[in-house]
Order: sequence, then C-alpha cells, then structure tokens
Amino acid sequence: MGNGVLAELLRANDAFYGVFAAGDIEGMDALWAVRAPVACIHPGWPALHGREQVMSSWREILLDGEAPQIRCEQPHAFAVGDAGIVTCIELLADNALAATNVFARENGLWHLVHHHAGPLQPAEVGFDPGQTIN
Amino acid sequence: MGNGVLAELLRANDAFYGVFAAGDIEGMDALWAVRAPVACIHPGWPALHGREQVMSSWREILLDGEAPQIRCEQPHAFAVGDAGIVTCIELLADNALAATNVFARENGLWHLVHHHAGPLQPAEVGFDPGQTIN
Repeated sequence: MGNGVLAELLRANDAFYGVFAAGDIEGMDALWAVRAPVACIHPGWPALHGREQVMSSWREILLDGEAPQIRCEQPHAFAVGDAGIVTCIELLADNALAATNVFARENGLWHLVHHHAGPLQPAEVGFDPGQTIN
Repeated sequence: MGNGVLAELLRANDAFYGVFAAGDIEGMDALWAVRAPVACIHPGWPALHGREQVMSSWREILLDGEAPQIRCEQPHAFAVGDAGIVTCIELLADNALAATNVFARENGLWHLVHHHAGPLQPAEVGFDPGQTIN
C-alpha cells in the first residue's frame, strides 16, 4: 500500500467530519457503504448493525437541533488488505473522543463501513477542548 | 464471504478474550498481526500505533496485578474484503464497554490489527455488569 492510499483514506475521513460538522445527512448517507455490511458505535451506545439502523442514528444525531461542533485532530491512517482504518481524536464543544473509522472501497471510492467513538480522558488529550474549538 | 469466515472471526475474537481474561501476555502477543500495521484504543486513551506501543500497553494491563475479569457478550462479526470486524460488549467486574476488534489474515489465520474499547452507558446494556460476571 503506497502513500497514495493513505492520503485517500485521510481525505475520506476529512469528508466524514465535513458532513458531520455541517449536519449534512444526505452527504453522510452518501459516504457510507451500500453493498458492504456496516456498523456504528456512538459514544456510550452499544453497536448498531445494518445500514437502516446506522443511518437512522445519524438522522437522530444530525437533524436534532444545531449541527454538532466537531473537529477531527491527529488522524492516522493505515491499510489492512483492501480495507482502511483511520484513528483520530474528535474535539466537540465540551469534550473529546477517541475514534476509529473503517473504510472499504465501493465504486473505486472509500466508503465508511464502521465508526466507533468513545470518551477520552481529558488528561490524555493534553489540552482543553472547550478552548480549542470555535 | 460465507458463514465459515464469520465463524472463524468469532473464534479469533473468543481467543482474544480468552488470553485477555487469563492475563496471558504471550498468548496476546501471538494473536496480534506481525506484518500488518496495528493500533489500539484502550478506554479513555488516545490511539496507540505500532506493535511496540500496542504490546507495551498490553504488558502494562495484563501484568499489573490480577488477571482482568473480562467477558465478551453479544459478539457480531462481519467481513470487509479481506479484513474482518467483530463488535461486542465487554463485561468487566465493575463496568461495561463497547468494543471493536479488527482482524486481518496472516499465515492463513485471523490476527488482530486494531482494538478499540470505550465505556457503555449502563442503561444501554440492560443489566448490571457487577452482578453478571464471576
């Protein structure tokens, strides 16, 4: 796997946080795989499986009031065969999460097949997320 | 991908929790990929990358006192190309976590390339983990 693949994965990851921060449910839908099985673990939630459950959860999150203040920091991509993984830190208005995003190719483009985010201990982040997001 | 692959993934996931609960650091080392890049997000920690960092964290966790009381519940496997993902709930002595384990094949056997565990809200589990683990 060359650096080109890792750059593509980082761009796909950026696109995910772009639609997330914009509250763009149609953009979010387009980023998730259609043929591959998908799953999602939101902070504190058990795993959701299947496109219907996963997209329903994103509608609940993105269409419930204001668009979330979220920013991705420290993304790190690696490829596993024909799948790709990006780990990163998610900075929200009032806390920070550690995230895993798993991607697979469909129609030549990386699509999400799994997202997992869970709380980070503030001491592990090294800064106050409340002061660094606008 | 047939059911055989999913059954293999579930067995690899069981093996992971077996060595975890036994505090078996050599068994844990043998379950992680050697050629593929690896990463790990322990509860509250940022992502660790690379075999050295990841195995060092497992030594810290497994060799620090008693073997952890941990049990895997509700495992759900799915394949993504030549990678495999298992989501599950981890029941510990005093809390519950949602976990993602990502596997790749090396020498024909599924090996861990990524583990991510984060706290589950007790209400989402539907039972008191303190009462169900022995």
